[in-house]
Amino acid sequence: MIKTCILGASGYTGAELVKYLSLHDSYNLAGLYVSERSADAHKPINSLHSGLIGINSDPLQPLNDTILEQLAWDYDVIFLATPHEASHDWMQQLAGKRAVVLDLSGAFRIKDADVFATYYGFPHTDDVWREAAIYGLAEWYPAQIAEASLVAVPGCYPTASLTGLKPLKAAGLLTATLPIINAVSGVSGAGRKAALGNSFCEVSLQAYGLLQHRHMPEIEAYLGQEVIFTPHLGNFKRGILATITVEVQPGTTTEQIRSAFTQAYAETPCIRLRDSAPKIDDVVHTPFCDVHFAHCAQKNYVVVTTAIDNVLKGAAAQAIQCANLTQGLPIMSGLVPEGQL
Amino acid sequence: MIKTCILGASGYTGAELVKYLSLHDSYNLAGLYVSERSADAHKPINSLHSGLIGINSDPLQPLNDTILEQLAWDYDVIFLATPHEASHDWMQQLAGKRAVVLDLSGAFRIKDADVFATYYGFPHTDDVWREAAIYGLAEWYPAQIAEASLVAVPGCYPTASLTGLKPLKAAGLLTATLPIINAVSGVSGAGRKAALGNSFCEVSLQAYGLLQHRHMPEIEAYLGQEVIFTPHLGNFKRGILATITVEVQPGTTTEQIRSAFTQAYAETPCIRLRDSAPKIDDVVHTPFCDVHFAHCAQKNYVVVTTAIDNVLKGAAAQAIQCANLTQGLPIMSGLVPEGQL
Amino acid sequence: MIKTCILGASGYTGAELVKYLSLHDSYNLAGLYVSERSADAHKPINSLHSGLIGINSDPLQPLNDTILEQLAWDYDVIFLATPHEASHDWMQQLAGKRAVVLDLSGAFRIKDADVFATYYGFPHTDDVWREAAIYGLAEWYPAQIAEASLVAVPGCYPTASLTGLKPLKAAGLLTATLPIINAVSGVSGAGRKAALGNSFCEVSLQAYGLLQHRHMPEIEAYLGQEVIFTPHLGNFKRGILATITVEVQPGTTTEQIRSAFTQAYAETPCIRLRDSAPKIDDVVHTPFCDVHFAHCAQKNYVVVTTAIDNVLKGAAAQAIQCANLTQGLPIMSGLVPEGQL
Amino acid sequence: MIKTCILGASGYTGAELVKYLSLHDSYNLAGLYVSERSADAHKPINSLHSGLIGINSDPLQPLNDTILEQLAWDYDVIFLATPHEASHDWMQQLAGKRAVVLDLSGAFRIKDADVFATYYGFPHTDDVWREAAIYGLAEWYPAQIAEASLVAVPGCYPTASLTGLKPLKAAGLLTATLPIINAVSGVSGAGRKAALGNSFCEVSLQAYGLLQHRHMPEIEAYLGQEVIFTPHLGNFKRGILATITVEVQPGTTTEQIRSAFTQAYAETPCIRLRDSAPKIDDVVHTPFCDVHFAHCAQKNYVVVTTAIDNVLKGAAAQAIQCANLTQGLPIMSGLVPEGQL
Repeated sequence: MIKTCILGASGYTGAELVKYLSLHDSYNLAGLYVSERSADAHKPINSLHSGLIGINSDPLQPLNDTILEQLAWDYDVIFLATPHEASHDWMQQLAGKRAVVLDLSGAFRIKDADVFATYYGFPHTDDVWREAAIYGLAEWYPAQIAEASLVAVPGCYPTASLTGLKPLKAAGLLTATLPIINAVSGVSGAGRKAALGNSFCEVSLQAYGLLQHRHMPEIEAYLGQEVIFTPHLGNFKRGILATITVEVQPGTTTEQIRSAFTQAYAETPCIRLRDSAPKIDDVVHTPFCDVHFAHCAQKNYVVVTTAIDNVLKGAAAQAIQCANLTQGLPIMSGLVPEGQL
Repeated sequence: MIKTCILGASGYTGAELVKYLSLHDSYNLAGLYVSERSADAHKPINSLHSGLIGINSDPLQPLNDTILEQLAWDYDVIFLATPHEASHDWMQQLAGKRAVVLDLSGAFRIKDADVFATYYGFPHTDDVWREAAIYGLAEWYPAQIAEASLVAVPGCYPTASLTGLKPLKAAGLLTATLPIINAVSGVSGAGRKAALGNSFCEVSLQAYGLLQHRHMPEIEAYLGQEVIFTPHLGNFKRGILATITVEVQPGTTTEQIRSAFTQAYAETPCIRLRDSAPKIDDVVHTPFCDVHFAHCAQKNYVVVTTAIDNVLKGAAAQAIQCANLTQGLPIMSGLVPEGQL
Repeated sequence: MIKTCILGASGYTGAELVKYLSLHDSYNLAGLYVSERSADAHKPINSLHSGLIGINSDPLQPLNDTILEQLAWDYDVIFLATPHEASHDWMQQLAGKRAVVLDLSGAFRIKDADVFATYYGFPHTDDVWREAAIYGLAEWYPAQIAEASLVAVPGCYPTASLTGLKPLKAAGLLTATLPIINAVSGVSGAGRKAALGNSFCEVSLQAYGLLQHRHMPEIEAYLGQEVIFTPHLGNFKRGILATITVEVQPGTTTEQIRSAFTQAYAETPCIRLRDSAPKIDDVVHTPFCDVHFAHCAQKNYVVVTTAIDNVLKGAAAQAIQCANLTQGLPIMSGLVPEGQL
Repeated sequence: MIKTCILGASGYTGAELVKYLSLHDSYNLAGLYVSERSADAHKPINSLHSGLIGINSDPLQPLNDTILEQLAWDYDVIFLATPHEASHDWMQQLAGKRAVVLDLSGAFRIKDADVFATYYGFPHTDDVWREAAIYGLAEWYPAQIAEASLVAVPGCYPTASLTGLKPLKAAGLLTATLPIINAVSGVSGAGRKAALGNSFCEVSLQAYGLLQHRHMPEIEAYLGQEVIFTPHLGNFKRGILATITVEVQPGTTTEQIRSAFTQAYAETPCIRLRDSAPKIDDVVHTPFCDVHFAHCAQKNYVVVTTAIDNVLKGAAAQAIQCANLTQGLPIMSGLVPEGQL
């Protein structure tokens, strides 16, 4: 059994990690932690998330800096579902010991330190681990992830965006015209917290973070090309739909585009190529990413739509995919029934 | 022009008061106030409520205790969309001067002081105004309201409940068996504020305040009979649907029940008797209360359903009905187009 | 392996049966059928329900009367997710052969034939199987279900209602005053079909079927007492919340009530007794029924709230519970992970 | 009084026309018509749309071809909220007589007849009126609309799209790179009808009509440039949010962009330029179009977001704007309170 714990277990992503890891045959989920300042400290996890009743009733243990290094030696795998700055500040104590660290925050996703000052609002000072971290886009970097000490699990929007864009990029079909990514996220993307902007009466379809969302440089870094990315908040709880519009090389055929996607994803059970445009409900509460494209040969444009559950393929499930890779398990182990592996 | 101001103008009810009074031909809305501790102080009201763009751009003025009495002498009508305790504490300075006071809080709705300690969590010490206040259920107490110095505007649930029950009570058709009131409210009933329980991801149909909601004694006081009242939070923004189940006297005919409702409401434009069960959408963004009943002669039971917009007939619109009555205006003035008065 | 098929597999309940039975280790789901007049005939099931992609891609075979009897001899277990009249008309060919029949329609739930003419709109002529059918309320009739040839799986509202009421009835705590049941169902309760009333823009919280819904006599038959039952349509996809208000015997203590529930459900993994009022989201996409009660000793009333997924515990999951009982499997087999059985 | 009637009054757009015209001081709404084959014929309009209770209770009169010409001589203004083909087939009888015709269908919006065969599925044979029709984008063509016999009221998506794009085009700021329009519409955009795709359980955020929606050539025709337009269905009842991404000329300043919008809209009360991104709820149940832009000087891109109520500014309210122009009334007459004109 792989001994594992979760730091920052009280949020929506934490709760999904608890659920999947508690039910996973190969992991022993032995510790749930929250900040020692959290009002949720000492509460049973299933008092916060009733979906965990019957699955896990462990208390949320308060976490202080002094036990971090001990955790790093005690556990095989540590999941961080913590704020960006907490992950940043703790990493020197956590990484490079016995445990493989899966960091679901944004703190180690990007190599360029300047991005953090500009987009995250804090200076990044851990050059060692920022450089060493492997980006956990599971279908694209499985070999590097398998060897990693620290995996920076991608953001939800970048997962939806890059899954749709990278096959076209890899096939050399994109032009220099900037890809345009519009994406709509459910409110769980904003986390489990009291905030007027997340309150039921205030939520209504709206763009935000226009031209300055922190997921834009993350997408650009792993696509290798500038993009325009516009996120939106939608009036649903979970899921992301990304609509990606790109110009393709003159003369590109529909068959070339199809081939780009099948080459990328024919062997990846998590990605489902679809003949019709996916909807959010197709993937919510699943680990899958559904992908569809439409091609206009006359204008040389392609519209790709991708759908994920932002809390699963956009966070917890992708983290488990990465953990599985580091532990030599099938990539979808614990995410789909055993017969489907 | 009737000179009026609103204390506590920043919430959902305040915003509706601003909208209707700004557009009303007979009122001059000359002051918008919030607590001096409010983060919204000094902001233009339409920066909080974009629906007011083009209607009212006045700033929210900070309110301190010292100017209360001045307001009471300066204005003809003062609306209080304030917390219960604020209304309680301020009333001695506000009431009994030039202004008629319309209090939308619960602080002066009930004569029995003990109810406040038990259900509101504070001791009620203003015996004078608690005794003098007139309950503003507009269709049932128009004459008293017209003469009032202080009108205690009813709660949203009591409005929906009493509108459905009082005709049967007045006609002597109820038995001693307790009426059962189940009601579902939209999330705006919880007010405009950041709270985890109101956050989009947490809202899902659920009963609350079981057997101890403060609107239960209010309903009982103005029905003159004990009831069982169970409120629910529903996943919509506005509206209340109340489903009221009562035993009626043996031998009661459907015609007697119909007659009870038509006698009560044939002349009240705000109440619409319906041949089919109303839905929330029928009344949202309107000042109306829709009412329907079904009768089972074999079991001697009647099920009444009523629907209101909790922020309008359940708060702001009923307050304006009451204000109209005190100013000698038609009861629906400013709430429906002039041709419909 | 238990050989099983589903008749009427294309609806929401059918799709859940397909999902759970496809993933179940003990069942071999070997046939999916729809009416030969259905527009869905010959389509792969996962082209209608994208949630089944990767789980089941079998085509929906057209069903005609001539093969019914053959199915009855070929299969061990047959699920009918068919209209009431189809179940009624087909039962003589299906029941009493090799297969145990799980009928999810209402056609065999009630012994009194008159109910069908009054509430279902057709005369019931199959006295033999109406008499022989066992009511599949899994926690209350497990022994009879285990021996049944034909199980009439309960309706969604009766499941939520009876689960809340029967413990109090069994403990002798109810009085002669009629229990009042208010329940709100998600729109999936109306089935997968085009109808103006189910269209997105028309759905809004509303009572319907007032005092004449067909689930009222079903509840009364298995409670052994008349009730008032008022169903509502709510603006959500799945789930039922039932709020049940009952008068209890004078002097009843809270401890007696608690004891009634724990005696009934201490050993039933499907029923989760809760300390706080459940919400719909607690149970949606789960097989569980959450139960909570509140007691007013002064008025001698109890309010019970129960929550289920109408398509699961209210239909497909309860059918699988019953099938498990008939096959000697643990009652929750295939409904919860193996480690939780 | 301007004598007016509505053909196709039973849908969502028809109901809004009924509401605004019934309450309008200058119009006499004297006839409501539906197809003689409609199941709604002879029903009072407020039995279909309860929001019209107290406003209009006229019956829906069955319409046959023989009375069309009579209507055209009897009325001053005729609104067609009819299917595209009906508008096409009837226009020769309706237009060019006494009545000004406001056609809310797509049948006369585009000059190029080929578009109809390709995108609408029928051949357009009325060259005379297709040529003579004036496109009713009220803020952009007020002079021509004022003189028109036939106004082709724009589609909902084109209204949202063109309102955002035309100021930049007019100012010469767009490059040859294709503008990318992503828009999400509420379900009312699909009309008031029973269809599985519109049923509550099936609706979930999803792109549709990819690269072949009929509003794409309409946008291109009145922008004067090719675009990529991707519509989406969202899980809300009303409203459209359009997110428009364009490349601008090198060196364009934010001030130039702002100036383009203020020049276009400083004098148009219907268009509200916003400092923050609008949300759907800001405009639902209003005639307004809210517009916001964000500029990235480094990439030379602008993201414009616009929000409208698809049934109002996207249909009924814009039709009334156009009718007002033809009758010499203020453009917002009847759409905003008189004091705001």
